[in-house]
Amino acid sequence: MMRTRPLKVALLGCGVVGSEVARIMTTHADDLAARIGAPVELVGVAVRRPDRVREGIDPALVTTDATALVKRGDLDIVVEVIGGIEPARTLIGTAFEHGASVVSANKALLAQDGAALHAAAEEQGRDLYYEAAVAGAILLIRPLRESLAGDKVNRVLGIVNGTTNFILDKMDSTGAGYQEALDEATALGYAEADPTADVEGFDAAAKAAILAGIAFHTRVGLDDVYREGMTEVTAADFASAKEMGCTIKLLAICERAGDGASVTARVHPAMIPLSHPLASVRGAYNAVFVESDASGQLMFYGPGAGGAPTASAVLGDLVAVGRNRISGTTGPGASAYAALPVSPMGEVVTRYHISLDVADKPGVLAQVATVFAEHGVSIDTVRQQGKDGEASLVVVTHRASDAALGGTVDALRKLDTVRGVASIMRVEGE
Amino acid sequence: MMRTRPLKVALLGCGVVGSEVARIMTTHADDLAARIGAPVELVGVAVRRPDRVREGIDPALVTTDATALVKRGDLDIVVEVIGGIEPARTLIGTAFEHGASVVSANKALLAQDGAALHAAAEEQGRDLYYEAAVAGAILLIRPLRESLAGDKVNRVLGIVNGTTNFILDKMDSTGAGYQEALDEATALGYAEADPTADVEGFDAAAKAAILAGIAFHTRVGLDDVYREGMTEVTAADFASAKEMGCTIKLLAICERAGDGASVTARVHPAMIPLSHPLASVRGAYNAVFVESDASGQLMFYGPGAGGAPTASAVLGDLVAVGRNRISGTTGPGASAYAALPVSPMGEVVTRYHISLDVADKPGVLAQVATVFAEHGVSIDTVRQQGKDGEASLVVVTHRASDAALGGTVDALRKLDTVRGVASIMRVEGE
Repeated sequence: MMRTRPLKVALLGCGVVGSEVARIMTTHADDLAARIGAPVELVGVAVRRPDRVREGIDPALVTTDATALVKRGDLDIVVEVIGGIEPARTLIGTAFEHGASVVSANKALLAQDGAALHAAAEEQGRDLYYEAAVAGAILLIRPLRESLAGDKVNRVLGIVNGTTNFILDKMDSTGAGYQEALDEATALGYAEADPTADVEGFDAAAKAAILAGIAFHTRVGLDDVYREGMTEVTAADFASAKEMGCTIKLLAICERAGDGASVTARVHPAMIPLSHPLASVRGAYNAVFVESDASGQLMFYGPGAGGAPTASAVLGDLVAVGRNRISGTTGPGASAYAALPVSPMGEVVTRYHISLDVADKPGVLAQVATVFAEHGVSIDTVRQQGKDGEASLVVVTHRASDAALGGTVDALRKLDTVRGVASIMRVEGE
Repeated sequence: MMRTRPLKVALLGCGVVGSEVARIMTTHADDLAARIGAPVELVGVAVRRPDRVREGIDPALVTTDATALVKRGDLDIVVEVIGGIEPARTLIGTAFEHGASVVSANKALLAQDGAALHAAAEEQGRDLYYEAAVAGAILLIRPLRESLAGDKVNRVLGIVNGTTNFILDKMDSTGAGYQEALDEATALGYAEADPTADVEGFDAAAKAAILAGIAFHTRVGLDDVYREGMTEVTAADFASAKEMGCTIKLLAICERAGDGASVTARVHPAMIPLSHPLASVRGAYNAVFVESDASGQLMFYGPGAGGAPTASAVLGDLVAVGRNRISGTTGPGASAYAALPVSPMGEVVTRYHISLDVADKPGVLAQVATVFAEHGVSIDTVRQQGKDGEASLVVVTHRASDAALGGTVDALRKLDTVRGVASIMRVEGE
């Protein structure tokens, strides 16, 4: 049953992702029409630099007036791949007001203003889909939102940034230091000239906020996500990880806290056992590991970025939204009915690997162990190595709260026999 | 916006999966209602043995008359977890006729009669969902059908049977033979008393048929799937695989053939490189690796079976179908618009690892190489090992058709100097 009147689509932004979306809309037009039940017609492409040559896009469709484009009034779907907060936010709101549904790949905007955008979509009876906003083409928002809708998710553990995974994988496999691995990532195009958003965990934190909201049917803001970058991970940390049968990954972790009445979301480097499925995620790939009551452990794996994979996720959404338009309905909106509070980082409970530089003399271990005991942090294993009056002490703890561990480390720093805290790394995925 | 009239659900079958579905419908009733937009009410449970105690299920709901239950006329959703062809097929047809949508976990039925069932659902304007029918809780039908709807899938490579993966993983990690590993799987409950359906690949073949249909938007019947079990895989094969940096998995492989104008579907043991994400899928876990034009490589990983994971997949479908009922629509049906023919196994092209027992004398390698050349099969590497007048010759080929390889092996068997063909194993995932 094919409708002949086409669905009208406007494209906001025509960079790497946008031009790939436009290309596939043309080359796969028949497939898309068959899957949606109506042809799709690209009626306008809003860009900043109209003079740039865009292969395969009719120049007559190109405009610099994005506002006028979304106000046309006859649009079925607006695809927003501009990125950033403004003008994307205002354009999406205007699109809803003028009758269009929206497919977006904008993680920064969704993480910051997802709640308001969802409310606007619902008020106008429109769809807001954004599979491409988290981890490119991994395709996990739909399973999380729809397939696990009858299950209870307890934890999401993800490698959601390809740049940092490339760097950490390189450090792991070659023994390189952070700077050397970053230089290689930059040379190969895996890291941007200014890698801050990636290596300091800002990108991953935005994705963690979106994931936590969907997984737990609640609202988690960007400010609710604890964030720690991976610039201080050293070759020595990888050596320590190997001794424990672990590797190091930058993880986005969203969990139900304690009794399930609150949630936590955080991004930081962590050791995970080599036997964990996330440990073998190589290069710039991403993967998200989901633990739920009934399903147990699931993992979704795929390219974390790139024009074509992201465009594929956008087009999957385009098909779903197109089908909804034709049947006169909308898909499942953001359900935030659970309205769970977000607990502070201090209440997060996990294990820790702490490496201390200490004086090589009798009684140091006893002093250190006393400090841990006084703060209620139970020690799992201790490894001591001494040379030339200096020694290192590696302590792995049982599960303890971040607050208790923080208090322990502060007290350790005050001991005369502790020359320095070489590293503190969380141990996850056990 | 919550509707107060509940959605009426009937459950056909109350074994491991069915009782878990009923349990979660009760314990998670509020969550389900919030996610669907209406409460769900279990109004009947059809079973064969009504006297069995079923914890948590009101005995007044239990009936042995499944036909009368699906004919009630007021049902919104029928959940079929009986399994097998009949009476499940007739009951599902009757449910559609009497106004209900259907959620099924029945892979045998979907593989055999999926086309007819989809046609019946479409004719009556009902939904037919079956995420649980392939690989338990992996959650891959929805991403394949919906998220990749704007992409072109070229290949699906899956470990879709937990029993055989457990056995092969055990052989790989311990050096055990097939029988020993099977005995352990049986003792631990991973293999049934009669393991034929699993170890001979029948279960995987049914899943391959369903997957191929969804991935390529076409119809693939059970008879279209080439099937080879894994009972003849030996410890020696694993030793050979290790020398090649590979392991052995029972794979379901669905591909576009040659120019993309046809498809193939097959199940057989194969060597895959240890660097391939499927190689690290351990124990009874399942994973499906998808290659597409735009998304590149994706993998979906999870428990392949078990009551709770399968029930979770059923409930995800229940939520989706429930939402569709309330909005008066149906989800995407089976799209088979591509209507691609299925090519015979002889046209499948891949690489092969062939182990021959040969006479240990000069000229044997030349004879063998000549046979390969005569059949147009190009050799990648040869490894020769001799002892006491006997020798083994291991040949790894470049890509060749199954027909060409078959012809080669037939001719090799006729050589006086070839005492026997010890094993032939395909090499995939490169």
